[in-house]
Amino acid sequence: MGTGGSVPTPARNTSAVAIRTAQDMLLFDCGEGTQRQFMLSAFSFMKLEKIFISHLHGDHFLGLMGLVQSMNFSGRDRPLEIFGPRGIAEIVHATITLGRFELAFDIFWRELKDGEVVEGDGYSVKAVEALHIPNSLSFILEEDGRKGRFDPETARKLGVKEGPDFSRLQRGMDVIVGDRKVSPKDVMGPPRPGLKLAYSGDTLPNERFAEHAKGCDVMIHESTTDSSLAKKANDYGHSTAAQAAEIALKAEAKALYLVHISGRYSDATPLLEEAKRTFVNSFLPDDLELVKVVSSD
Amino acid sequence: MGTGGSVPTPARNTSAVAIRTAQDMLLFDCGEGTQRQFMLSAFSFMKLEKIFISHLHGDHFLGLMGLVQSMNFSGRDRPLEIFGPRGIAEIVHATITLGRFELAFDIFWRELKDGEVVEGDGYSVKAVEALHIPNSLSFILEEDGRKGRFDPETARKLGVKEGPDFSRLQRGMDVIVGDRKVSPKDVMGPPRPGLKLAYSGDTLPNERFAEHAKGCDVMIHESTTDSSLAKKANDYGHSTAAQAAEIALKAEAKALYLVHISGRYSDATPLLEEAKRTFVNSFLPDDLELVKVVSSD
Repeated sequence: MGTGGSVPTPARNTSAVAIRTAQDMLLFDCGEGTQRQFMLSAFSFMKLEKIFISHLHGDHFLGLMGLVQSMNFSGRDRPLEIFGPRGIAEIVHATITLGRFELAFDIFWRELKDGEVVEGDGYSVKAVEALHIPNSLSFILEEDGRKGRFDPETARKLGVKEGPDFSRLQRGMDVIVGDRKVSPKDVMGPPRPGLKLAYSGDTLPNERFAEHAKGCDVMIHESTTDSSLAKKANDYGHSTAAQAAEIALKAEAKALYLVHISGRYSDATPLLEEAKRTFVNSFLPDDLELVKVVSSD
Repeated sequence: MGTGGSVPTPARNTSAVAIRTAQDMLLFDCGEGTQRQFMLSAFSFMKLEKIFISHLHGDHFLGLMGLVQSMNFSGRDRPLEIFGPRGIAEIVHATITLGRFELAFDIFWRELKDGEVVEGDGYSVKAVEALHIPNSLSFILEEDGRKGRFDPETARKLGVKEGPDFSRLQRGMDVIVGDRKVSPKDVMGPPRPGLKLAYSGDTLPNERFAEHAKGCDVMIHESTTDSSLAKKANDYGHSTAAQAAEIALKAEAKALYLVHISGRYSDATPLLEEAKRTFVNSFLPDDLELVKVVSSD
């Protein structure tokens, strides 16, 4: 929704990444104007279930107030969950009190510390302490493992006929073929891991984040500047494009998306080129760009 | 900057009107995303001197936090003044504390009550109580009066030669022609009133606002719905397009600009047509539309 740095530009709004899982819609960070970015996108903010705020700099949460008020105006009655680091309570308090409106739905909130996990419907989100201001978090989203793939050839060899018995096996039931029992374990491949996504929030390059992100399908990493401004970026607790790429490499990520691009770059392709020299499968998404993540197995 | 209602749309952002006077830049209301609207406009938010907030619904002030933080990031050191109704202190407090940043410039703020006036450099802004939620304000901006026009024909007839003596008279000094004194009052027309602009904020139709706006060059009036939804609009403390036009007519305004257009209108021309039936010189500005107001005398 927003791929820009601390100050938005006409092209890049402040931080926000919407994730649609099989069951839910989640949001990582919610910079000012995120509700309007949703309106310009293929997603509806009314479907959001959980919002994760990485840290309490304004460009990562100032969109919460307007988003919650617009959900309210638009008739939401389902609860909304908001997660963030120590201090998130104050932001939630401001969200529900500053606009002088009557909130018609519940907001549940929870402070997360390093290592804490939020369980969702078919996925979990783990908080990992980031190296930025005190109480900054990165997030690791993991889908629950999926069952193995059904192997129709093996089933046929075992005498199972295509039709209702195929479905039964795929749904976990035994079937009887003549005087023999065929079980799902006989015809299903090994369980497959779920998709994994790692969102850095704002951070210096962080080896612990790379460890927790190990093998992720998608890493979304902040990349505030190119290497010529490394000292300045690092002094403010930010990473360069090359540093983001090194973290993706260490994590053996399958793809890297660069976000939190400083407003000083009207054309940020030098950041992409820099990242690609270390990690070839790097991308520089535009605001509102939709990326479909599919399992390769 | 923003001509939409409580919930923004892709076409209309929440409330904000920037006014450039001869000396200053002012902002009436500051909905979420106003800093980015500035970036898309011909104006720079760094030039803002005074911000007036009409009332404390989120769509009128949630852009303050990000705007102030971006001013700070962009190196502002001049003070900023924020005015608003009872409760504005709480909003200013949130603005300077929520984002965990060090404010490098002063913010002066003041609560305004009905009838109170803010004196600017060459203009004044008067608060008039609006009929919306308790502590809602409309604003009347008046330029200081200008001196009369210099009449070169009369000056010549009185024997003054074109050149330095013309300038002296225009700058308020007497000149001597032969044995006679010619004074500015002999060659300058009557003083002319300054331009006058009236901004309604959110309000039911309000005769007192019309009285205070009397003879204004521009009235910017909220126009949330068309007349078919008058009951709903009025129940929520809002005006219809026809009601806005009636107030402009009563005020003998020279022009009416309709703002705070409900998000239900993807095409708001029916509101404009409705207003024009009562007040012909009505306009429906787009977001970011620039209007130059000049004196006719």
